[in-house]
Amino acid sequence: MEILISSSVWDPKPWVSGLSKSENVSKIHVWPTNDDLSNVEVLFVWKPLDNGVIDKLPKLKWISSLGAGVDHLMHDPQIPSNIPITRIVDPFLAQDMTNYVIMGLMMHQRSMRTHMQNQRELIWDRITYKPLKVGVMGLGALGKDLAEKLVVLGFDVYGFSRSEKVIEGVKCFDESGLNEFLKETEVLVNLLPVTPKTENILNADVFNQMPDGAYLINVARGNHLVEKDLIAALDSNKLSGALLDVFKEEPLPTQNPLWLHEKVSITPHVASVTTPDSAIKLLLNNLLRLKKKEALLHQVDLERGY
Amino acid sequence: MEILISSSVWDPKPWVSGLSKSENVSKIHVWPTNDDLSNVEVLFVWKPLDNGVIDKLPKLKWISSLGAGVDHLMHDPQIPSNIPITRIVDPFLAQDMTNYVIMGLMMHQRSMRTHMQNQRELIWDRITYKPLKVGVMGLGALGKDLAEKLVVLGFDVYGFSRSEKVIEGVKCFDESGLNEFLKETEVLVNLLPVTPKTENILNADVFNQMPDGAYLINVARGNHLVEKDLIAALDSNKLSGALLDVFKEEPLPTQNPLWLHEKVSITPHVASVTTPDSAIKLLLNNLLRLKKKEALLHQVDLERGY
Ligand SMILES: NC(=O)c1ccc[n+]([C@@H]2O[C@H](COP(=O)([O-])OP(=O)(O)OC[C@H]3O[C@@H](n4cnc5c(N)ncnc54)[C@H](OP(=O)(O)O)[C@@H]3O)[C@@H](O)[C@H]2O)c1
Ligand SMILES: NC(=O)c1ccc[n+]([C@@H]2O[C@H](COP(=O)([O-])OP(=O)(O)OC[C@H]3O[C@@H](n4cnc5c(N)ncnc54)[C@H](OP(=O)(O)O)[C@@H]3O)[C@@H](O)[C@H]2O)c1
Repeated sequence: MEILISSSVWDPKPWVSGLSKSENVSKIHVWPTNDDLSNVEVLFVWKPLDNGVIDKLPKLKWISSLGAGVDHLMHDPQIPSNIPITRIVDPFLAQDMTNYVIMGLMMHQRSMRTHMQNQRELIWDRITYKPLKVGVMGLGALGKDLAEKLVVLGFDVYGFSRSEKVIEGVKCFDESGLNEFLKETEVLVNLLPVTPKTENILNADVFNQMPDGAYLINVARGNHLVEKDLIAALDSNKLSGALLDVFKEEPLPTQNPLWLHEKVSITPHVASVTTPDSAIKLLLNNLLRLKKKEALLHQVDLERGY
Repeated sequence: MEILISSSVWDPKPWVSGLSKSENVSKIHVWPTNDDLSNVEVLFVWKPLDNGVIDKLPKLKWISSLGAGVDHLMHDPQIPSNIPITRIVDPFLAQDMTNYVIMGLMMHQRSMRTHMQNQRELIWDRITYKPLKVGVMGLGALGKDLAEKLVVLGFDVYGFSRSEKVIEGVKCFDESGLNEFLKETEVLVNLLPVTPKTENILNADVFNQMPDGAYLINVARGNHLVEKDLIAALDSNKLSGALLDVFKEEPLPTQNPLWLHEKVSITPHVASVTTPDSAIKLLLNNLLRLKKKEALLHQVDLERGY
């Protein structure tokens, strides 16, 4: 089969070389290109997709995101609604995300920013610390792995998802339990997908339900966060700080006040990065399924939006 | 029974109030004091013990450290060799230590110091990261908990201890396998006790066995580390960095070059701090055992020195 790869953010080389090893792949095109694309049946995208690309693919049968998120496809009007869309679900992606969040959580619990400042000023201050209740929003491929491992590490863990989950050691709430969930949450970790229901969910209303001095870790998407509400909550001491890995606009524009806010820690969308090697295995597995007309793995529900 | 508490570093109040609730405790003295100590049978110490204290305790039957370490007692010539010495072994102590080390490990893997510097300079740089092999020296109460949890989090884990251990998912080496262990170790975590055999074990010979660019996390004792060898290894790029929580002299003197070394992260002996509440449970349990003439829990082997 012929594949088109459109990857405006990542280098397409490792994807091309990994995929081309399969006997089921006859040709790989990389967008932008003047190639004849009329025989392309498969499109792999890592965001955003240029306007008009879909029109060039009359035989298109399957679209996959090259990352865990599909929001870049859900909000693109050129994407047809009758073609299956899949995404990357990979244990390494979950593992990397979980370890990043644990780092952020521990840096907050142990006042690492203050310790690092104290080091610069030669100050020996044995700051005390206390146990923390952690609330995980979204208990999917990533949130579930995080919640389970936080239990192993001894944290008090709360979980929130559309449909109620059963996870050992985690107090789980469904959509209707948001306020109860937030009441307990001293550190809020967002691992929701972006949908019409979850866009801007990290707003003043949500922050105000949380205990004073709560901490926010946003590792899902920038579109979940109302930035001005976060800044107000930090400035009024409602929240004690935030670790942000994702932003409405990336790279984060230099004039954005989050950059230099003293209570905000910023990383440049690196919490968990798809490893081509293991993602390619999944893509080739799905390619075989497509050929055999079997159901594709990790297909997105277009109605739900994730 | 009468107890003497000598705690030069911590506030003795929570210990006194917790212990005094037991019917087996008739009186608690706090050093320094002019009280008559001739009926004291039990001594609880958190380091160091003033000279001459032991001479005032003719009926002394048991000494306990109030922390996990007993090096402050092992090296004190006034401590008699015919009295049992115990220490605190507490799941919370292990849990806190494990979580602190994971934080340090992840901050290294994810270049967090560079990300924090980049934030100050408004630089969006998506630094890549790679899997790391972690070597844990000492697989006792703390090291074993760490090694097991690192396996759960997906790290490649190597272990080193006097007698060879069997821990699922961990490649274990005994005393004779030090060099083989070091050869694999990209991040070395020291959780050994201080004994004549382990003092100054973190030296140039050990660093030179490790892969170039390896990282050191010392959370055991300052006496394990040859500071000038560490600085030389960092300056020659043999090691890429170090996280140090413990020092030969604490508080770390302001003129010590470790404070401002750009590759060194310093925290003020806070990796894991005894929680009086849970330690007191253990102490009262041992007090009852002493009364009933049963063997004490977590007794130190004076011959081995830990
Ligand atoms: N920063 C990074 O480096 C990075 C890397 C990878 C992924 N991500 C982001 O991480 C997020 C999570 O990814 P994932 O793969 O774990 O997603 P997923 O498997 O689709 O899981 C989504 C979870 O959110 C829940 N959910 C959806 N809508 C909800 C609503 N309205 N109310 C309450 N819960 C709702 C779902 O509930 P049900 O279980 O009931 O369906 C599910 O538990 C995505 O936003 C992705 O883009 C970020
Ligand atoms: N920074 C902090 O906040 C903090 C807090 C608590 C404790 N600590 C320190 O953490 C360290 C570990 O405490 P722990 O309670 O885990 O100690 P532990 O239970 O006594 O365990 C010691 C481990 O080291 C091994 N070992 C001893 N001598 C050795 C040698 N010569 N060669 C190789 N291995 C050797 C032992 O081997 P075997 O298993 O064969 O006996 C054992 O596995 C101590 O130094 C303690 O002072 C620091």
